[in-house]
Amino acid sequence: MQAMDIEKVNSMDFGEFVDVFGNVIERCPLIAAAVWSQRPFSNLEDLEKHFFAFIDALPQSGREGILRCHPDLAGRELQQGTLSAESRREQSGAGLTSLDADERLRLAELNAQYRARFGFPFVLAARRSDRAAVPRELARRLRCPPAQELRTALAEVKKIGHLRLADLLGAHPAGL
Amino acid sequence: MQAMDIEKVNSMDFGEFVDVFGNVIERCPLIAAAVWSQRPFSNLEDLEKHFFAFIDALPQSGREGILRCHPDLAGRELQQGTLSAESRREQSGAGLTSLDADERLRLAELNAQYRARFGFPFVLAARRSDRAAVPRELARRLRCPPAQELRTALAEVKKIGHLRLADLLGAHPAGL
Repeated sequence: MQAMDIEKVNSMDFGEFVDVFGNVIERCPLIAAAVWSQRPFSNLEDLEKHFFAFIDALPQSGREGILRCHPDLAGRELQQGTLSAESRREQSGAGLTSLDADERLRLAELNAQYRARFGFPFVLAARRSDRAAVPRELARRLRCPPAQELRTALAEVKKIGHLRLADLLGAHPAGL
Repeated sequence: MQAMDIEKVNSMDFGEFVDVFGNVIERCPLIAAAVWSQRPFSNLEDLEKHFFAFIDALPQSGREGILRCHPDLAGRELQQGTLSAESRREQSGAGLTSLDADERLRLAELNAQYRARFGFPFVLAARRSDRAAVPRELARRLRCPPAQELRTALAEVKKIGHLRLADLLGAHPAGL
């Protein structure tokens, strides 16, 4: 995806906008489709602000719903090749596509415990992590109180969204 | 998809639930993922009530966003084969997959006018319509005031959702 400036963004019809920004929040094109109502945007920060405000205004079930649209890290969708392009790149960047069998099993067990405890999958901005840190962080967050963990997980959704938006608008070197 | 009873629905983890109900509202798995928070459901009507309540509680931008996740009838996604399975079946049932070139062009022009006027695509429960009625209804709704048309379009989203839920739960003969 070529980087673009904010004038280009503001000139998009909703079809183009959803094609480009539909996965800023993983598998939630509804959010990009809603944010389009708020154009024109003054810059990347302004655009991002509208994505985050939409998330924050959802009822708790909706915020949990966003989390439930995320894949497990190093989970079934990675094995089956059905990850979104963004998620695959991020998980790959953290080394999660080249785990050995023991590491995969360990992560699968932790993911299952986490899903059973909180009712949503473990979400982490994987691009800022690595294969050793992911299970450590998962084990740590597994012990947090549910209300706190919901806040933490949504903060990770926003970190992921920030990095994806910055990629699309060329605000930092790709991969950082 | 095999019909199922409500006990089966209530026993699903969120991954299964989103796999099955993720497209009750077209391309908005977030909504099914949020509705899972409200289980157990007493019956089909109760399940449906939670889908519709989530839609009604969204800000206007979110309700418009739901509409923007819908494809045009007999539009680009049908030509390119990228419709959801449900949408393809519904458009096919209304005869929209076998339009002649003139009918397709007429509908494309009306769709474009509608999108330009309202900022979302024309949404209609196609299964309850046919190839002659669709352009007639589109031309009629194109002249409605925007606030009224938003309400009409969301009522169609709910009709579509009702039919898709009824299919999944076997509440009526398939195809009706």
